[in-house]
Amino acid sequence: MRGAVLYGPGDVRFEECGDPKIVAPTDAVMRLSASCVCGSDLWPYRGVNPIDQPTPMGHEYCGIVEEVGRAVTSVKPGQFVIGSFFASDNTCPHCRAGYQTSCQHKELVGGAQASRLRVPLADGTLVPTRDVPSDDLVPSLLTLSDVMGTGWFAAEAANVKPGMTVAVVGDGAVGLLGVLSAKLMGAERIIAMSRHPSRQKLAREFGATDIVTERGDDGVARVKDLTRGVGADAVLECVGTQESMMQAIRSTRPGGSVGYVGVPHGVALDGEELFFSHVRLHGGPAPVRRFLPELIDRVLSGKINPGKVFDLTLPLDQVAEGYRAMDERRAIKALLRP
Amino acid sequence: MRGAVLYGPGDVRFEECGDPKIVAPTDAVMRLSASCVCGSDLWPYRGVNPIDQPTPMGHEYCGIVEEVGRAVTSVKPGQFVIGSFFASDNTCPHCRAGYQTSCQHKELVGGAQASRLRVPLADGTLVPTRDVPSDDLVPSLLTLSDVMGTGWFAAEAANVKPGMTVAVVGDGAVGLLGVLSAKLMGAERIIAMSRHPSRQKLAREFGATDIVTERGDDGVARVKDLTRGVGADAVLECVGTQESMMQAIRSTRPGGSVGYVGVPHGVALDGEELFFSHVRLHGGPAPVRRFLPELIDRVLSGKINPGKVFDLTLPLDQVAEGYRAMDERRAIKALLRP
Repeated sequence: MRGAVLYGPGDVRFEECGDPKIVAPTDAVMRLSASCVCGSDLWPYRGVNPIDQPTPMGHEYCGIVEEVGRAVTSVKPGQFVIGSFFASDNTCPHCRAGYQTSCQHKELVGGAQASRLRVPLADGTLVPTRDVPSDDLVPSLLTLSDVMGTGWFAAEAANVKPGMTVAVVGDGAVGLLGVLSAKLMGAERIIAMSRHPSRQKLAREFGATDIVTERGDDGVARVKDLTRGVGADAVLECVGTQESMMQAIRSTRPGGSVGYVGVPHGVALDGEELFFSHVRLHGGPAPVRRFLPELIDRVLSGKINPGKVFDLTLPLDQVAEGYRAMDERRAIKALLRP
Repeated sequence: MRGAVLYGPGDVRFEECGDPKIVAPTDAVMRLSASCVCGSDLWPYRGVNPIDQPTPMGHEYCGIVEEVGRAVTSVKPGQFVIGSFFASDNTCPHCRAGYQTSCQHKELVGGAQASRLRVPLADGTLVPTRDVPSDDLVPSLLTLSDVMGTGWFAAEAANVKPGMTVAVVGDGAVGLLGVLSAKLMGAERIIAMSRHPSRQKLAREFGATDIVTERGDDGVARVKDLTRGVGADAVLECVGTQESMMQAIRSTRPGGSVGYVGVPHGVALDGEELFFSHVRLHGGPAPVRRFLPELIDRVLSGKINPGKVFDLTLPLDQVAEGYRAMDERRAIKALLRP
């Protein structure tokens, strides 16, 4: 089969890369119904995270199980399944505590921008739907593999509760789905930080009540203005830079919380500033596995449509254009159809 | 009156420093029943926090109200009161959220190692007891002004819940009272990190079930050993150095919490390590005002005796010896009697 392979900055090739096979008895191999490009794929694509060898790309996936190893008992060929970007056994103490992305046996899933995929630890990782869903639900189900679960975790980590004022730093797919998650958790006021009209529009559609276009300290000042000088109760950090992290912390009221899910790049937090801010901090790679059952229900029942973040659909073999469009911010998120 | 004044590293003098007076209509002046030396007083005493002028010392206090400004309505002369090291109005949004040490009008209280003290924002800051308590309760009541409330906040910020395994980094008065607080909140197992026999003994008395003498990465390894490789559910950081902070974070299981109350000195947190640790972080200057009513009840009803942390009692005019004894770790905490 063919799949996307990154060779270096800006150089994604769609090429033959061998058929995935069952390697361990706990593996599954699936045929992907769709895949996509993630904001985090742009870090190596832009050369910020250097790679040392050609690397199969993609970690968001859903589709039909084709084959399972002999130890797999909870999914079977023919089922439609969704999994997380980290495979996890779902039985270790960290998994049982709901932190499957810290699983003692976790493995990064890679190579999902392809037609087929090997998933390790299939029993712990994959969640099947009762029936094979209709094709129009696939984009929304695909977001549960990462970006929707990650936005959800950001809101949960920021302790979003009904009636709260929430600010969201970052207007990528995760930030936008953080807005949706905050709305679903009952936030009364949701301030989306965005300077892109199309993203602002989707933020409003997902529940944002206010848009702030300023960044950095000016952005902080606007959030303070909007909250009578107090700051937001909860802030979702969905970028991962020093500026975005400080913007999130400084926009939060004392006793409020920052949920941070942007993979930090060069972020260092000054202990003293954090101490006197009285801000709660929680985040990390989102344990989307924990949220899959609930979020699958919400998608299948038509209550949420997170697939709206896909504003570009491409055939899989044009994956390179997906990267370009996202890199140039022409697209929020690119859906890839086999 | 005379009080303790710090002139420079190691140079505390007990000298005439003028009688405190009502300055603002919201002030109270009180006669102190006792005062004490705080671990945080050692930062400037050791020259780690340089001072630029002779500085009246002391921020822990309880005693009898002598005089109040004309705007004060909730405390009156003759009452026994306890207050926090930060004066707060207790009415601003941050106070109402329970973060009085981030009060929009907060003022640091200073000069409490003396016989009398001016307290700003008396209505918001001071909590009176119903009757004047007996003298033997004064040490325990005095700890509520800072160290007991701070240990309590550390445990609360670390989300200590019944049945949990808790580790405490730091065996000063705050760390020891963090052990007591974790016990009161229902922790099942409490690992105190201490290499001092007298402090280990008090830690056990307060509820510690395990003592770990190792520090840094060795200390982390011991906590992991004691928790089958998982890490503690909650860790209280009661020191404020880079090493203690990293020890706390690395001793915590993914999804667990660090409550940090040691004032950070030169602490910088690597965003990426924190992200992948999945550890929750909350702390800051403890809003002890929030806890005063409840903790006063516990002391007056004889349920807790946090005053045990005072293992040295001196007449006020020997305050310099109190600093020396704590600096040399001959004493956990020095009580000063007028």
